[in-house]
Amino acid sequence: MSEPTRDLSVRDIVPQDERYGGLFQPLRIGPKVAANRFWSAPYATGWRMDQIDREAAHRRVRAEGGWAVVNTGEVAFDPHSRNAWLDGLELMGDDDARALVQIVEAVHAHHALAAIELVHLGAAADPKQDRLPALAPSQMQGNGLFFSQAIPRTMDADDIRRVQADWITAARRARDAGFDIVNIHAAHGYLPVQFLTTYHNRRTDGYGGPLADRARFLREILEGVRREIGDDVAIAVRFAIEGHGHGALPADEALEVVRLLDHLVDVWDVAQGGLATTEYDLTPSRLFPEGFSLTWTRRMREATGKPVVGTGRFTDPDLMARAVASGDLDLIGAARPGIADPFLPRKIATGAHAQVRECIGANHCARSQARGQLACSQNPTTGEESRRGWHPERLPPRPEPEPSVLVIGAGPAGLECATTLARRGFSMVHLVDEHDEPGGHLRWFRRLPGLSPWGRLVEHREALLKEFPGAAFVPNTRMTAGDVLEYGAEVVVVATGAPWSRIGVSFVDNEPIPGADASLANVATPEQLLDGKALPGKRVVVYDCEGDLTGIAVAQWLQRKDHEVEIVTPHGQVAAQADQDNVGPALRAEVIAAGGTLSAATLLVQVGPGEVVLEGESGARRGVPADGVVLVIRRESDDMLYRRLLALDPAQLRANGIDEIHRVGDCAAPTNVADTIFDAHQVARKMGSKHQ
Amino acid sequence: MSEPTRDLSVRDIVPQDERYGGLFQPLRIGPKVAANRFWSAPYATGWRMDQIDREAAHRRVRAEGGWAVVNTGEVAFDPHSRNAWLDGLELMGDDDARALVQIVEAVHAHHALAAIELVHLGAAADPKQDRLPALAPSQMQGNGLFFSQAIPRTMDADDIRRVQADWITAARRARDAGFDIVNIHAAHGYLPVQFLTTYHNRRTDGYGGPLADRARFLREILEGVRREIGDDVAIAVRFAIEGHGHGALPADEALEVVRLLDHLVDVWDVAQGGLATTEYDLTPSRLFPEGFSLTWTRRMREATGKPVVGTGRFTDPDLMARAVASGDLDLIGAARPGIADPFLPRKIATGAHAQVRECIGANHCARSQARGQLACSQNPTTGEESRRGWHPERLPPRPEPEPSVLVIGAGPAGLECATTLARRGFSMVHLVDEHDEPGGHLRWFRRLPGLSPWGRLVEHREALLKEFPGAAFVPNTRMTAGDVLEYGAEVVVVATGAPWSRIGVSFVDNEPIPGADASLANVATPEQLLDGKALPGKRVVVYDCEGDLTGIAVAQWLQRKDHEVEIVTPHGQVAAQADQDNVGPALRAEVIAAGGTLSAATLLVQVGPGEVVLEGESGARRGVPADGVVLVIRRESDDMLYRRLLALDPAQLRANGIDEIHRVGDCAAPTNVADTIFDAHQVARKMGSKHQ
Repeated sequence: MSEPTRDLSVRDIVPQDERYGGLFQPLRIGPKVAANRFWSAPYATGWRMDQIDREAAHRRVRAEGGWAVVNTGEVAFDPHSRNAWLDGLELMGDDDARALVQIVEAVHAHHALAAIELVHLGAAADPKQDRLPALAPSQMQGNGLFFSQAIPRTMDADDIRRVQADWITAARRARDAGFDIVNIHAAHGYLPVQFLTTYHNRRTDGYGGPLADRARFLREILEGVRREIGDDVAIAVRFAIEGHGHGALPADEALEVVRLLDHLVDVWDVAQGGLATTEYDLTPSRLFPEGFSLTWTRRMREATGKPVVGTGRFTDPDLMARAVASGDLDLIGAARPGIADPFLPRKIATGAHAQVRECIGANHCARSQARGQLACSQNPTTGEESRRGWHPERLPPRPEPEPSVLVIGAGPAGLECATTLARRGFSMVHLVDEHDEPGGHLRWFRRLPGLSPWGRLVEHREALLKEFPGAAFVPNTRMTAGDVLEYGAEVVVVATGAPWSRIGVSFVDNEPIPGADASLANVATPEQLLDGKALPGKRVVVYDCEGDLTGIAVAQWLQRKDHEVEIVTPHGQVAAQADQDNVGPALRAEVIAAGGTLSAATLLVQVGPGEVVLEGESGARRGVPADGVVLVIRRESDDMLYRRLLALDPAQLRANGIDEIHRVGDCAAPTNVADTIFDAHQVARKMGSKHQ
Repeated sequence: MSEPTRDLSVRDIVPQDERYGGLFQPLRIGPKVAANRFWSAPYATGWRMDQIDREAAHRRVRAEGGWAVVNTGEVAFDPHSRNAWLDGLELMGDDDARALVQIVEAVHAHHALAAIELVHLGAAADPKQDRLPALAPSQMQGNGLFFSQAIPRTMDADDIRRVQADWITAARRARDAGFDIVNIHAAHGYLPVQFLTTYHNRRTDGYGGPLADRARFLREILEGVRREIGDDVAIAVRFAIEGHGHGALPADEALEVVRLLDHLVDVWDVAQGGLATTEYDLTPSRLFPEGFSLTWTRRMREATGKPVVGTGRFTDPDLMARAVASGDLDLIGAARPGIADPFLPRKIATGAHAQVRECIGANHCARSQARGQLACSQNPTTGEESRRGWHPERLPPRPEPEPSVLVIGAGPAGLECATTLARRGFSMVHLVDEHDEPGGHLRWFRRLPGLSPWGRLVEHREALLKEFPGAAFVPNTRMTAGDVLEYGAEVVVVATGAPWSRIGVSFVDNEPIPGADASLANVATPEQLLDGKALPGKRVVVYDCEGDLTGIAVAQWLQRKDHEVEIVTPHGQVAAQADQDNVGPALRAEVIAAGGTLSAATLLVQVGPGEVVLEGESGARRGVPADGVVLVIRRESDDMLYRRLLALDPAQLRANGIDEIHRVGDCAAPTNVADTIFDAHQVARKMGSKHQ
């Protein structure tokens, strides 16, 4: 990455607006002092120890952006705790400790406190690569999407002593590496919670039975850490007052645990939810309002006088200031808002609210980290701090002379391309769209139930267009190849998107489904529906071959219009992809509660008037009444204009002054909005290097 | 790993039995000569470039074991071809080429030929980590379990030229690294097949349309490779005569392609199946007999005079010799049989058939590679060649003085422990079991439909017990802690396994299901059923919370006894785990064809006489007739004896001469048979280090 601005210290931030003064008051945490109230919460990135440069660069940008405390994600100290589905950091020996210094130095460069989250997954682990069993207080499995299906080994007395000792050793190594805060993870249904709850703990040996005995495993760890390094580091405990779902500790018992352990703790990092109910932990905007967690930080206050951290997708500075002033919490914890905009604290201090890339709560970060590439729908630089050397706030200046640029299509890709060029100082960028407003598919997508936060992707970029007038939006203009030739721009960027297919050719067999034709009155695509095409009758079948957010949202939109809806999908579960954003289970339950039907592992094989024919896994076919059908089959790149431009004689292009033609985003290959914006950002960031 | 025996050269193998002489005849392949007819086929291991020492050590053992040609697994040369679900080797630049030399040197150490498989996944790729789109001839998705759900970018003319050039460059770099054979992967539905078939290819630009034009993409690659390095390396093409399923080329067109390209090819590596139908490619023993592929190598002969490789889980040397003698093929390709026993060729040559660890065709290798730890049900050293320095044929000698060892339980773990000790030269090993024959759960498991090959795990170890008399089997003996104390052994290994739970406490909520009690006449566990417990009536519900091989096999066993069967599972699909072994889809189809019902995403909430109550995802409950119920809920470690021994006074153990107590395999934590055997092997391999 480009050289960090080391003169940006979290100690020197002075809020311009006294309303937010409380957010910038220092706070003592055990032997340490946080410079302000912004706590970059622990979150996993999916990078391995051999990718620690990426981790360090990513965390450094948090400190630079003004977060007084910057946590790592989960750090494993025991091979038995390794995770089969998510790579992560480790602290299993001195080599690891030496490597982690890189993170500490990155965070200290801006005078923030470095915190390390030490975890043991217990029964949730899946250490198959090491060919080890998971460990647990009793041989009970965990419930939920992210719990391993493997059956753990019951820990014997030696196992308990060994894991406790290794946890304490890891804390000492973390101290030696320079970390300021050791964050002991006792939430998410992991090993300490497994000891705390009778759902997992059936022991009779002094580590099970009464609550105080179930708390002994965690207490002995905290005592050991305090004894060994308590004067040198602050001790945080990540803990849920209400875990929700199976295997969660009841709130009254959780508060009792806080009282039991409070003397050993310097700051309580309040979590909610667990692996059985990750939607509570990762509170997608589709299900939870901002600041949802304040309920639980207030409960925590009942049991402790120590500082309390709360998270909850905070992006509204007024809400944050009220929460701190009222004592609902002491530190604004945030993972996603800081992924979307690492400079959130500084922008609040300087009053640059309009420039904040507000988190949309889509949880693309959660989905993408599991693939080893942390990414964000709002912030294309997320995860690219080291790999591509991208900084969220610093862009290369425009080349001299600058080319004039025509961007065709004002969806997310076109908007990102134009605004990035404008931020670079380009002064001749035209963003042209056939509609009267920008947004592309988000124009209608954001009107689906629960998806209005997606509008922030558009609003943020519209605000930038106003602020950086180098790019102008040209509405109501549909362009042909001839129009492009005559437009006079030197660089042409085609960002014409990918509408939903109007015919029923799906991945299942690449053959048309008889009758599945959106030119008929009883068949519609999602766009057609939201653009006003009314389906006849009451009963609608939504055929969802994508299995992601659109199909189930369209179903909910129809339900709110009093349609009776059946979602049919060839996949093993309806909206299975949405489980990666922690919304799948809740959305399916909502559709069912509203009277809808879910038919998984089922093909739509024919559409007729008033009826469709479905085929189940057995091959048996059945007719099902359907007044209307929505085809959520697949998106297809609208690349006609791009192909026509490519087919032109290069001499003609040159004669018309066109130097470069790009296609970006869904117009090249339909994908998620994060990668669409990334693709456009990439083109805009590099543009003009050959002019220089 | 321990120092390789470099004097073991594939050139020096002399078969002891003339029946197998044909298998050890050299064969010219283009400019190279294979020393015999054993071709270690390409297969993925799941290791990354930074784990290349593991890859090299693994391939070296193949060469040492007598395979004249040793292939790598898939090597990607284009970031667009990266795979989101399986790590693998890469050849994207000179650094990669330098790293791959390690593999070449490992294979050459035993004078085998080193082959590299170069692939481009096209639409099957999922290069999300690189934030790139997949590439394909047209914007069509692939079908099947392992195809990405992402929608590819249509390749324009520049894309085609670039990928072809990169493929040829990768081949040149492979030659420079010392590889003898470049194996161009044109099977499995990957990019060359996507160009060949109209399922994917809708182009109109000279790379689509007539077959010769669809073959142009592959032809130009082969021409380029031959032009650049054809004199230095042999060119193999991996190709299927019948791909099966959607997106496969019809056999007559495939043969036409062979005729079109034959002049550019030195050896045809015959594949079958594709990503849409991986069971044909990975032919699990449950579905296919040994040598299944000979049908297709014979068809290949119709179109070529070049050498032909065929694979098909060959372990029977008589079948192999016949296949070569009859001209059905020229080279015995094998992945799995060589994973199970890398020394298969040498053992055939020396007549040591009884010592061959025959592949059971369970495809645990396919399941485990995707988790980054290639493993094998038969061979615990697979994947541990470098990491643990384990050699399949060399074990550390027994310590002096040797301890006497009591192994309790003659299931897979107990058998592996005892036989490994015997192979090390231990002379005082007793393997005790309560039954009259060894096998543990495999005694009944191998009697389930299609699972008889699992018996090879037992038979191989029974043969070793006879050959190495240091370990004796003691049948019909159930031991108490008191018996163990008095037995007189210095080391005690408890391997008492993990029977199926007799009560309905599942991972769903850890609460008992009313009526789900295998002490009742209408409820049984799998063991009880196979041990003769007869369920009343005709209709049986199998409640499968594991979702792996046992539940569906029990259902098939019941169907063959004329029961009417419904499989109920809380998971999204019945036997979903079995999809990882490539058997799930076929088994589900078989159960349905035999009249069975599959109820996924469904809970069993009550068992009554003649009826069960089920709960679907909507929460709605329904009664279903059920004369009997089989509980495939979870396995539970039978660790009572181990816990009793641990609870004894250490002084008493010492007084009775007991130095060590171990628990191994399912008795510690129930897992797959590969990891069970691994765990026992590990204990046996290390045993006695403190006596030395």
